[in-house]
Amino acid sequence: MMNDEFIKKFDFFQDTQIIFGAGSIKEAGDIVRSFGENCLLVTTPGVDVLQPLYASIKQILKKAGVKVAHFDGVTPNPTTEDIAKGADMARSIGADVVVGLGGGSSMDAAKAIAVEATHDGSCWDYLFYKKQPTDKTLPIITVSTTSGTGSQVTQVAVVTNTENRDKSALYNNVLYPRVSIIDPELMVTLPEFVTATTGFDVFCHAFESLLHPKRGAYVELLSKEAVRIVAKSLPKVLKNPKDVALRSAMAWADTLAGLCIANAGVTLPHGMGMAIGGMYPHVAHGQSLAIVYPACARFTWRYAKDQYAFVSRTFNESLNGASIEELASIADQQIEGFLKEINLCQRLREVNVPENEIEILAKQSMVLPDYENNPKVASYDEMVQLVKDSY
Amino acid sequence: MMNDEFIKKFDFFQDTQIIFGAGSIKEAGDIVRSFGENCLLVTTPGVDVLQPLYASIKQILKKAGVKVAHFDGVTPNPTTEDIAKGADMARSIGADVVVGLGGGSSMDAAKAIAVEATHDGSCWDYLFYKKQPTDKTLPIITVSTTSGTGSQVTQVAVVTNTENRDKSALYNNVLYPRVSIIDPELMVTLPEFVTATTGFDVFCHAFESLLHPKRGAYVELLSKEAVRIVAKSLPKVLKNPKDVALRSAMAWADTLAGLCIANAGVTLPHGMGMAIGGMYPHVAHGQSLAIVYPACARFTWRYAKDQYAFVSRTFNESLNGASIEELASIADQQIEGFLKEINLCQRLREVNVPENEIEILAKQSMVLPDYENNPKVASYDEMVQLVKDSY
Ligand SMILES: [Fe+2]
Ligand SMILES: [Fe+2]
Repeated sequence: MMNDEFIKKFDFFQDTQIIFGAGSIKEAGDIVRSFGENCLLVTTPGVDVLQPLYASIKQILKKAGVKVAHFDGVTPNPTTEDIAKGADMARSIGADVVVGLGGGSSMDAAKAIAVEATHDGSCWDYLFYKKQPTDKTLPIITVSTTSGTGSQVTQVAVVTNTENRDKSALYNNVLYPRVSIIDPELMVTLPEFVTATTGFDVFCHAFESLLHPKRGAYVELLSKEAVRIVAKSLPKVLKNPKDVALRSAMAWADTLAGLCIANAGVTLPHGMGMAIGGMYPHVAHGQSLAIVYPACARFTWRYAKDQYAFVSRTFNESLNGASIEELASIADQQIEGFLKEINLCQRLREVNVPENEIEILAKQSMVLPDYENNPKVASYDEMVQLVKDSY
Repeated sequence: MMNDEFIKKFDFFQDTQIIFGAGSIKEAGDIVRSFGENCLLVTTPGVDVLQPLYASIKQILKKAGVKVAHFDGVTPNPTTEDIAKGADMARSIGADVVVGLGGGSSMDAAKAIAVEATHDGSCWDYLFYKKQPTDKTLPIITVSTTSGTGSQVTQVAVVTNTENRDKSALYNNVLYPRVSIIDPELMVTLPEFVTATTGFDVFCHAFESLLHPKRGAYVELLSKEAVRIVAKSLPKVLKNPKDVALRSAMAWADTLAGLCIANAGVTLPHGMGMAIGGMYPHVAHGQSLAIVYPACARFTWRYAKDQYAFVSRTFNESLNGASIEELASIADQQIEGFLKEINLCQRLREVNVPENEIEILAKQSMVLPDYENNPKVASYDEMVQLVKDSY
């Protein structure tokens, strides 16, 4: 609840069993076995650093009597071609269950494979605005190795069309993982830049859900806890990457933020960030969000004062005495201060976006519907201003 | 999270769709219809004050094309005989879905009927330690009219055996309502005493979950929010019973507390409270808890200082400067202060419990396993002391 505010109507649904905590990967065997004997394990290719993890989960699964086929063909933004190969493999082994092990790409690929292996056509036929996947979808188990996408508790799978490089999403309750195993010990090896960008993405998922019209008392509670944890733990984990307590805090914040986007959603900053990522794939998702956040705060704070005041207070506890209005009006500076602390304060120009593409980028930022869920909806001219302000 | 505490391992599952807010009963038609055409409506008998509500839900359901059979034979502590009659009716109409409309008794009866109508034998054969109900269990929808039991979001149904008056529970994930409609407008007519006792029960569910060994970061977050809301809103709603905003706050706290008991559970005070309710049925459930709470706080605070300090701070904001130890040590007084505020500060002697039954009551308080989940487990001698301290 925001202060004494009337609890407005809301709707909340999330049916994933969450198994959280250091060492919980050890439970994967019995959990997967409870869904059947034949399992497709879905991951990115086994580069050296990942081999021990892959070997370890296979052993855990086999020990529980699970037959594992390993599809390790997931690319960073999983394509319909990746999914088709994975789905073929799932069908050929008669998979009873799909396990997505990794970050957002592996988990999203597992979800899309679970659909394509059990339905006619390609997963691309089951995008959120097309035919809907049914209960035949294979049960999905996730074992997450990053703290960022929230995919371990969402009903979304983002896929890229191999032919036209178009990116879109499957969105259906059957895509909620049946079980989500979140073991922070798997996250201690994440490099600094990935930790910072995915960690900031967690903040963005939580905070944008707080701006979203579909938010309600449940989302607000989860969102604020996630924001508080990121504010406190992200700077610390960057200094102590091997600290399991801090990795646990971030993994929990990521899970909370995932629950938020599953029941509310993202807004203007993600709309712009997705456009940047689409046009300039060398810019990491969390980095693109960091670039636009201060400008989005300046554009939006007047229309969501409680939320921006909350951000200011959370990032800077010394501001506690100020009024809501004052706090909200300086949220951009508090966010910038936080971005400096996590070494992610940048501008579009610094990531080599050509100045003459500002207008195309503004146009692209209005392709996905997310920006329309912002408390203040940007016109095209305002979007150009927002991009310029981030340049 | 408790301060900087390491997030310990936890497991969380809850798959009920929560439809919350004033006016949400209007959605019942389409929701119920999505589960089938034939619906069994389960309620207590239609005394005058309830007739308009029963008429209204029937109209809402019929308008959506749902055929309704009304089983209005639920008694306050639903018996196996009630359940058998309801299950017969469900089978005879070929029910596709069971709607429990009312307080805990109606919702629990709906759950038990959903099991008995689809399984061999009586619901009593499916108690938590016996055979388990299967997926054949009819889908359960709840429409709650009180804020207290949390049953709208739990997997529990408490039933009383008609023959031997034994009380026990079904406990299985198939008993989670598929959809829980929580409309605070239905609660504005609750009498003062029911509001106070069920409201205090909400606090107890949330707080005991915070003491429970199965608690985790998720439960802690939900629990603390529920405690905060009860501390703030329960005294106010007793003065303004028709205030929908305050009823919404209490309904939301009740739902949060229900999520907590579904994933953690109750402890010592409920163990004692259930014994009191069993032996002296004229004592309301929330009243029995109010009677034992200060004594339980004195007995337990040293073993759960963070939790009791939190209670002291929440019930009495002026205590903010004190240490955890100091705060925890005076939790009994803060709870007593709160009970006075809601006019529920009583002793066993005042509700006519005979002094010579103290030892039997202590023995009865150790029948259910709840007391073993207390941070400090009472021996029989200590239980006698606890009862005396509440006398
Ligand atoms: Fe994101
Ligand atoms: Fe209770």
